Formats: sequence, structure tokens, C-alpha cells
Amino acid sequence: MNSDLDRILSANSIAIIGASNNPAKRGYQAVKKLLEDRFAGSIYPINPKTPEVLGLKAYASVLDVADDIDMALVCTPAKTLPDVLADCGKKGIAGIVALAAGFNEIGAEGGTLTAACIEAARVNNVRIVGPNTNGVFNLHNRMNLVGVNDIEPGHIGIVSQSGNMLVAFTTEANRRGGPGFSTYAGVGNQLDIRFNEYLEYFGNDESTKVPVFYIEGFKNGRHFLDVCREVCQKKPVVIYKSGRTEAGRIAAVSHTGALAGRFNLTRDLLRQAGATVIEQSDRILSVAEGLGKLPTTCGDRVAILADGGGHAAIATDALIENGLTLATLSDDTRKRLKEILPQSAASQNPIDVAGGTDNNPDLFARCACILLEDENIDNLMIVGMYGGYAERFNEDLLNAEVETSERVVALAKRFGKPLIVQSVYNATQPEPEPIKVLKKSGIPVFVWPEPAAQCMAELVRYSKSKERIAASPLIEPGSPMEEAIAIIENVQFEKRDSLYEFEARDLLGAYGIAVPPCIVVRSHADLGTMCGESSANPMAMKIISQDILHKTDADCVRLKVSGASSLSANFEEILENAKSYDADARIEGVLVSPMAQSGVEVIIGVIHDPIFGPVVMFGLGGVYVEALEDVSFRALPMSKADAREMVKDVQSPRFRDRGVIKSRAALLYTAI
Amino acid sequence: MNSDLDRILSANSIAIIGASNNPAKRGYQAVKKLLEDRFAGSIYPINPKTPEVLGLKAYASVLDVADDIDMALVCTPAKTLPDVLADCGKKGIAGIVALAAGFNEIGAEGGTLTAACIEAARVNNVRIVGPNTNGVFNLHNRMNLVGVNDIEPGHIGIVSQSGNMLVAFTTEANRRGGPGFSTYAGVGNQLDIRFNEYLEYFGNDESTKVPVFYIEGFKNGRHFLDVCREVCQKKPVVIYKSGRTEAGRIAAVSHTGALAGRFNLTRDLLRQAGATVIEQSDRILSVAEGLGKLPTTCGDRVAILADGGGHAAIATDALIENGLTLATLSDDTRKRLKEILPQSAASQNPIDVAGGTDNNPDLFARCACILLEDENIDNLMIVGMYGGYAERFNEDLLNAEVETSERVVALAKRFGKPLIVQSVYNATQPEPEPIKVLKKSGIPVFVWPEPAAQCMAELVRYSKSKERIAASPLIEPGSPMEEAIAIIENVQFEKRDSLYEFEARDLLGAYGIAVPPCIVVRSHADLGTMCGESSANPMAMKIISQDILHKTDADCVRLKVSGASSLSANFEEILENAKSYDADARIEGVLVSPMAQSGVEVIIGVIHDPIFGPVVMFGLGGVYVEALEDVSFRALPMSKADAREMVKDVQSPRFRDRGVIKSRAALLYTAI
Repeated sequence: MNSDLDRILSANSIAIIGASNNPAKRGYQAVKKLLEDRFAGSIYPINPKTPEVLGLKAYASVLDVADDIDMALVCTPAKTLPDVLADCGKKGIAGIVALAAGFNEIGAEGGTLTAACIEAARVNNVRIVGPNTNGVFNLHNRMNLVGVNDIEPGHIGIVSQSGNMLVAFTTEANRRGGPGFSTYAGVGNQLDIRFNEYLEYFGNDESTKVPVFYIEGFKNGRHFLDVCREVCQKKPVVIYKSGRTEAGRIAAVSHTGALAGRFNLTRDLLRQAGATVIEQSDRILSVAEGLGKLPTTCGDRVAILADGGGHAAIATDALIENGLTLATLSDDTRKRLKEILPQSAASQNPIDVAGGTDNNPDLFARCACILLEDENIDNLMIVGMYGGYAERFNEDLLNAEVETSERVVALAKRFGKPLIVQSVYNATQPEPEPIKVLKKSGIPVFVWPEPAAQCMAELVRYSKSKERIAASPLIEPGSPMEEAIAIIENVQFEKRDSLYEFEARDLLGAYGIAVPPCIVVRSHADLGTMCGESSANPMAMKIISQDILHKTDADCVRLKVSGASSLSANFEEILENAKSYDADARIEGVLVSPMAQSGVEVIIGVIHDPIFGPVVMFGLGGVYVEALEDVSFRALPMSKADAREMVKDVQSPRFRDRGVIKSRAALLYTAI
Repeated sequence: MNSDLDRILSANSIAIIGASNNPAKRGYQAVKKLLEDRFAGSIYPINPKTPEVLGLKAYASVLDVADDIDMALVCTPAKTLPDVLADCGKKGIAGIVALAAGFNEIGAEGGTLTAACIEAARVNNVRIVGPNTNGVFNLHNRMNLVGVNDIEPGHIGIVSQSGNMLVAFTTEANRRGGPGFSTYAGVGNQLDIRFNEYLEYFGNDESTKVPVFYIEGFKNGRHFLDVCREVCQKKPVVIYKSGRTEAGRIAAVSHTGALAGRFNLTRDLLRQAGATVIEQSDRILSVAEGLGKLPTTCGDRVAILADGGGHAAIATDALIENGLTLATLSDDTRKRLKEILPQSAASQNPIDVAGGTDNNPDLFARCACILLEDENIDNLMIVGMYGGYAERFNEDLLNAEVETSERVVALAKRFGKPLIVQSVYNATQPEPEPIKVLKKSGIPVFVWPEPAAQCMAELVRYSKSKERIAASPLIEPGSPMEEAIAIIENVQFEKRDSLYEFEARDLLGAYGIAVPPCIVVRSHADLGTMCGESSANPMAMKIISQDILHKTDADCVRLKVSGASSLSANFEEILENAKSYDADARIEGVLVSPMAQSGVEVIIGVIHDPIFGPVVMFGLGGVYVEALEDVSFRALPMSKADAREMVKDVQSPRFRDRGVIKSRAALLYTAI
């Protein structure tokens, strides 16, 4: 348990530094809101110029307060922060929430003050939320230190690098009747407390079922991944990362001065750590709400139960495009559906009730029961017009509809399978009672099929990730092999910054990766055994020179060479071409190696990412790297299951269709 | 003007066939709704069993009515339709709206009745909307023959193959305060009137600014494209086509029995014809509303004016991902912005006002004016928290905010540039007055940046398409060349179903497309001149046989062959390999041709699509065809501009980066 953040976000006593009697000031609004909401703890207005604020005794300094104080909301200007931190340290305050802007986000000018604050926080042992934040809240404690009203308490936690996103989420929730929120933290410039610590707090916070992060840039990406792996075993973590495009990255960076990395890499690594990464801001809240309500699922096979052919078709497209599978109904299921549905209804997936429910909503529950019993179905999605029968056809149907909703809720609980509803009538004014019953009983209801399908897809992904992380341990790196150390030391000794191909082959060989044999030929005599072999296995020949990186441009590559005379002739030619390409090039010799068998060329690389540290990359090699930009990333250390998924990630249909996935996955395990 | 559809959808007199006094029946509900809405024309209930319906005199048959009748809503069962059509024909009724189901959508059983109806409609000269439709409405005429209430009149027209989609659109409009609707037609099974005729009607309907189509399958795709090209010169046409995936296609087909084609082809062809194709059902209405309000635009350069760094970053990503360009502000614009914005605000695009508007909403209008004046900016997007200042900070700001909205509206009109607003406060309850002012004055307002960006992108696409279609005429095919006719006739004479490669080359050559020379070698003597040439230009050699299609598998291809002896040896080998591959193969000879220079391989093909007729395909050739499935389609005849866009469509970054677009476009012009 992170006790500092716990004392800040679940504070029993709060100082408002810069408390005020001026209604335009945050130091007034914060005190007023705490009083209005009947905050259960103690409130200490701090202001040397006034005896009281809104009826509460005001203190000149936190040091004048007799009782313990957990945290302080600091409403005073940026330049006061170092002194405030010193006082708070003396008082034993766990941390401050610093609203003021004017630190590193304004560039060099803010640098000195930023450094002073970091130092003051360290010396005085006081943690900082922000600065440049719009505040924090914990609605279950009735502590709302953000200037945003009308927020329903609930189970979504928010951590955001943009205060506006909180307003976006809460107004969206009001607009469509949920979800509610637990705790919010505006991270501001992350001078001290960073995303990983907030995530740790939310992992342990029982009021929060789904922590949601709006992230512009990480300051400690590697720690975040580590925490995320653990928290995702307990609850889903939903992340929106802005700055997917170069222009968006620049916009994000200029906002809070954080480092924004390459998006594809960030997304892959966050998903490796079990996080749910959403790429459209208008889908964040609905996915989070759905994940918070639904049980994890055993698979990706979905049955669609539709009132309306249009919605059945749209939902089908959306599910398939989200990577899910349309379940194949068992013969028994089809037979049982046929018995109760009208003749014109489809008894295959998607199942369209074809008006059969218009006068008989209960038919929905009966169909749902048959479908949930089918072992071929992992998840159920009800789409179309459910919940609007009384409104559309006959008011007398209302009771039957409400009962149907209750039965559907009970069925979802009984079978423990995820059940999502999409209804045109969701969030209408007034909202039909059958929809309300579903929503308040934990069934996610969506207006359109696409967000419903996306929510289902993210649930499947989260369920699989959770299982993968639990089942497949990270492979910790062993000590380097002696041969490998020798190769690298020699390269360093020769002051080169890259390996020769024969060294790279030896390095791979040292770790047990099969590579074709090769020899370094420095004279005709060296060709020796290769001459005989080359009649059966033609050879590849390449110049070895640290000064000739583009060997083909220098015409220093020969392929499929066979026979002693041809080998000799090509050896000479390569050396000559190398000299005419660059007379000063240092020539090590010519590499001769049997041609490899043809296959799918892949690329495996390791980069040191400034945000996440060592990261492995995998993708199609050769011309495909350039043509497809189709690579997948994982943080190291990784697990065997990560390697397997990484190969599946590679999108190209060519790659998928040729059934090479298995062999490549094996190669990748060996490589790591 | 399509006068039949005009008499149906803008009817002055309506017969309700199967009118009823039973409130559960559509024949009651329809009459009641017309009376309630005070339909201005005449209503004739038809029912032989009752003297009156809802106080109106009822007739036994339409033939008993003395006055003219424009159209009939038919509420009676499917089997009555042939007789109903006969009566209507005698009466001179232009068309019927047939609600009943039970025709071709139920398969073979419905076939006889379907055929009878088609014949009755033809013989009696009566048009059919449907059958299997939920009806039609024309709200500006106060004619609502659909069982859906609470629809606001407005400028969106709907044509849908799913009745539920109408409910989805109208409830969505109610949920977020617009748009309103003009006319609706549920096309049902399209037995008679098809999408192209509805589109023609909407093209001429002055109440409709944007016709919106929900399409599962076309029955006459080619005509639709032709009409679409014309209508798009007058107004945007928005289309959602379901059945993008194979499973979705099956779901769509089983719904109304229509033929659903390949989606990528359909999308490309609709866009060629100027249509706006939306792929997410939850975005249809917002895009349509936006396109209906905005003027066309001169370009794709967008300035973002943001209150809130988070929304600025999200909007930037969304714009770029939608293919738009972030405008580069002129130096003058930056200077002028700097003068009025706070020091911490960014005076580059996106422009974040950084709190500068919190007490001074008018700053927004001043910034907007500066940006709209900049010639480097084609479109303006305002994002973030605009409209919520009074609510968030101080009620006294309300007047200033409303005035700002009025100024923004006036600026948009003055400069004639598209202006879109995204505000967190849109569609909240109660909705802030400044937002209302924007919306009612023709500024589209969105809740989230993504749909706003998509709307902007579709506006840019529509504006360009409209211009392209107006400026670049279709190239009508000329008469076939005599050489080409001779080649094809010979192939037919030999009863082959494919051309030999040398014939294909000759065919291309006949139309002036440069191809490498080639000869057909049947004996060593034929090699003749090629031997000398081959030392400078190595040759490619391939078997010519109608029985050997996979030449490489048969080892009947040789590349880079040079020198007389090598040519001869390879000629022999190819013939031998062909015989051992298939002893009975009919061998025409060996094709010998100089190796082509290396370049980007492309594929150009023509297919006869069952829905749209002749369609040309263009994409990356060779392994890329398979790896990328990266092809673009256009209906023939096409224009030069179509050819140019087709090449740009090809998504591969490899393709784009290498600057080959121009030369490929030239090739494509020649090819068509």
C-alpha cells in the first residue's frame, strides 16, 4: 500500500492553503464544496490575512494547527511552493495538491522553480500531486477538490494529464446516465508522483473497479508496466494515450512537457502488461463501464440475438472487424430456437427474432437462456430495439418487458457469461424502465452496435491478457555467454560500433540459434572446402568491411555461386569492386556461406526505448519491413506467450495464411 | 422529376387500404396519425366491413372514391397485393406503400407471390414502395405513415433497407437535439422502386439537404452510381453499406434477400460517384448533419482553436488520422495571436488559449477572426470547453458567451469557410445557451473530437469529389481496334478462355501501351536475332501452353538468360520440363523477351461486377497483391481524375514514398 497517496486521496484532514472569502477564488470554492458535500474529516483553511473562511477558523500557517493534517490543497501562486513544502514537511503532512501553473511546462523560465520544488519535496518528505493540476476528488469520502460539480459516485477511477478530460467524462456520464466515479487525480506536470504510483493506489482502492488513464506522456514508463501487470490481475486498467501522430505528439508534449513516445510501441507494451488501450476518446468511458460490469470471458465466440435485421448486420460486421468470432450454434440450440421463434426468423447466428417479440418480449429471455446454455457460445450480445416494446406497440407490455429484463439479468448471473445489450432506446428521455433495470443490475447497455462490439472485444482481450500474464512467467535474462562477451569485447577493442556479419552469426550461434555456416575468405586458399560444397549448395558471397555498409550498392554481393572457378572469379571481383567503390575502405575479407533455403524473411531487433527501456521488435523482414511497417513490440523480459502473441500481431494476410506462425514463434523463443 | 415517386412521397390524397377501428392495427394508427398531424390532403380509409374509421367515411374499394388518389398505404396481408394493385391501377393511383412481409425474403415459398406482384404492378402501371417496409413519411407535408412518433421536421432525408435504422436515427436525434428529418422511405424488398429512384427523388426534393441511405444490397448498382454523380453536384449523399465482412454480408442478405457485393469495391465506386460512405453506424447522423450545415471547402488545411490541451492533442491526432492537414499559420497570424493570448498559450497550430478565455470568452471570437483571415487556413475547428464558461466560472459571463457565439456564427458566414465546434457541453441537460445559438445558426457542434474530425474529413472529401466530377469528364470507350478484334476472334476460334502472353502484349500494344518486344520461339532457328541482343539485354524465357498455367511450378521459366548457347540450352530444358510436367500439354513454343527494367510492379485488371458492371482494379503487383490486398476500384467509364485518385488510394507507404505515383498514373491513363 502506498501510504502517502492513501493519505492524500483518502485524507481525513485537509488544509486549504490560500483559503479565501472571495467566491471567484479556488481557495473559497474548495472549502465551500467540502462543506456542502459534508466532508466527514477536518478542514483547515490557511490564510494569514483572515480570521475565518466560510465560518471555519482560519490559520496563518499549517504549523498553527494543533491536530494532524493528512494533505493540503495549495491554491497559492507557483512561487510560494518551496516554502509551502517546507511548512508541510514540518507539520508531517503527507502530500500537497498543487494547482498553480508556471513550472517546467512553460519551458526554461520555469526550470529554477521546478528544481526548487523537487528539492523541497525531497528534503521535507512531502509528496506532490501536480503542479499544474485541476485537483483531486474521492467521492466515496465526499472530498471533491476539483471545480467540477454534479458527479455521481461510482466505480470508475480517473487519472488524467488533462483536467478537461475529467469534465468530458463526467458530462458524458450525466448525458447518458452513468457510470459514476470513485476517485480522480489530475497528475499535472508529474513533478513527483507519477502514473505508476497512481495506478498502484487504484489497484488497492476497493471503491474503484476500473482505473482509467488519460496519458500524454510517461515519466517512468517501465515502472508503470510493472505495476500494470499486477493491477490487471485484480481489475481492468483502461488507457487512452494521446500523441499517436507526429503532430499529436507535438501538441501533447507542449501541453505538459512530458516525453511522448512512439505510439505503436507504447500500445503494444501497455497491452503486454494487460492494459486496455483505447484509441478513440469517445469510446473510453463506455469500454471502462462495460469492463467494470462484466465478468471475464472464456473465449471470443459471440452469439447475436437481434430484434431487427439492420442491427443484426451492423453488429455482425462490427464484431468481426473487432477480431471476434460469430459462434456456430449447436444443432440442439437451433432446434430449440426454431420451436419458439416465428417461421421467418433466422435460427442461425445472428438470430433475428423477426417480430416474434413484438407482442411477447419474454421470448427474448427464452432465446437468451437457450443461447447461454450452448457450450459453443462464450458471450451474448442482444441488439436492436429491446426495451422499447411498450413505447412502440402497447403500454400493457411494460410489465412483461420489465420481467424479461429481470430474467435476462438473472440468466447472465447464472451462466457467468458476459452479456451486452445494444438498444436504440438507451439513454432516451424518459428512458424505458426495462433498460433501466438492465443498467442498474450490471448489464452494460449501448446505443449503437459499434461501441458494444468494441467493449466485447476489449473484454475478450483483457480476459486473455489476464490469463496470459498469470500463466506465462517472464523469462529473466541469464548471464551472457563467454563467447558472446569475447565477441563484443573484440568489437569494442577495435572501436567499431557494429558487428561484422560473421560475428553476428557467431553471437547468435553462442545462444543456440541455428545459422548457416560461413567462412571468412581472405585469399583464394581460404576458399578450400567451400569449392566442393558449392556444387551441391551454391554460395552467397559478401564483402566484409566496416567502411562498406551498403554492400549491394558497391556491387560487393554475389548470390548462388557454385564451382571452384566461379568462386575464385567472384572473390576477385568483389575485392576489386570494393576498392573502386572506396579506395580507403578497410577490407576484412569476403564472407562465403551456403545460400539459405527460401522462406519468410523476418526481422527481430532490440532497441533501448528512452521511456520503456529494452524493447524487442518483430516483423516481416526484407522489403516488407519498409512496405508494411508491420512490426510488433514487447518489453523485455517477456514471456513465451508474449512471443506467441507477437507473431500473431503481425498483420499481413500473407504472413498469416502461409502457416508460418508456429515456426516463427519457435524461432522467437530461441531468440529471447 | 420522377413524377410517380413525387406523387407517392408528396401525396395530396392518400388511401389507407385495410383501414381499421382496432387501435392495435397499422390501418388504425396510420389514419389516426394523419388526423393528429393535420395532414393537409385527403384521407380515404378503405375497408368493406365498416362505414367509417375514426370519423372518416370508409369505402369498400378505392374504385368507390370519386376524387383522384395519389397513393395508397396497403395494410392488408401479402396475398391481397395483386388484386390491390389491379384496383389501384384502374383508379389511376401512382403507387402503393406495401407493409406486408412474406415475399422473396422468405425464400422459394414467397417466389410465386413476388412474381405476381411484379407483373400486376407492370400491367396496371402502379409503382411499389416495399413490400416488407415499415412505411414512408414526409414531415414537411405532415404525412407520417410510419409507426414512429416524436420526429422533428428538418433537412435530413432517410432511405433505409431496415426500419429499425429509422428508429435509431430519430431517437439519436432526440437524444442530442437534432438534426430534423424531411422524408423517409423504407425500401423493403425493392420489388419495384429501387435505391436509384429514391435518390433521384431526393436530388430534386428541396426540403432535403442531405439524403442518407442505409443499404444492405443494391438491385441496380450501376444506375445508382449514375444518379449519384448528378445528385452530388447539388447536395451531399451519405451512405452506410452493411455487409463489410463475409459474416455481415450473409446477415444482410438473409434480411431482405438482396445481393450484397464486395465492400471495398462498393465503397470505392460510391466515392467515385461523389457519395460520402460512412463505415460506423453511430457516425452516420452526425456526418450528415455536419455536411448539411457546412459550405464546401477549398482545401484540407485545418486550424484547431482549443480551450484545453487534452482536446487539442486528441483533435490533432484525429484530424491527421482522417487524412487532413494541420495548417501552418502565417507569421502575421502568429504575431496577432501572440498579442491577444496569454503568455503561456501556444501561438502555433493547435492554438491552445490556455485559460485566456476563462474570464473573457470574446477572445475566442477574436482568435477565430484572425485564423479565418489567414489564407493558409481552409477550415477552423474549435475544440474543448467552449460554451461552458458561465457554468464553470461565473454566471455573469453568459451574455458575453452568447455574444461570442453570435460573432463566431457571423465570422463563419463572412469568410465562407467551414467552422466546426466540439464542446464537452454539447447536448448536456440543460444545454448552455451559447451552444444552442451555434447549433440553431448552422454551426455543427460535436461532443467528442473524433466525430468532429471525421465530419471535417468527409466535407473535404465531398468538396473534392464534387469538383472532380464537375471538372473531369468520363472517358467514353472508343471502338475496339482492328488488331484487338483479330486477336480476340482468334482466341475464340481456338476455343481458349485465356490469352497467351504474346497475345496480351500485342493487345496492349494495339492500344499504344509500351511493352517489351517478344518473339515466340518454336525452334532453335527462331532464336535468331535474340542471341546477339541477349549479351546486352539478358532474356526472360517462358513456356507458352494453354495447359500449363503455373509455369514456375513446371520449371518452365528462365530469367536473365544471355548468350546463344545458353538460350539454346534453356529452350531445350523448358520444352523438356513442360513435357515431363504434363505429357499431353499442347505446346505453342517458348516466349523470349528482354528482361524488363526493375521498377514497381503494379496490377491493372477489369472485372465484370454483377452489381456494378465493368470495374477496373489497380494495385501493387507481384507478391504485394497477395500480401497487402491493396487494390483500388473504379467503375468504367472513368475520368482522368479518377485514375489519378485511384493511384493515390493505394495505401502502401512503400508505394507512396518512392514517388512513382506520377508515372503510374500516366500508365493508367494510357491503359484506360
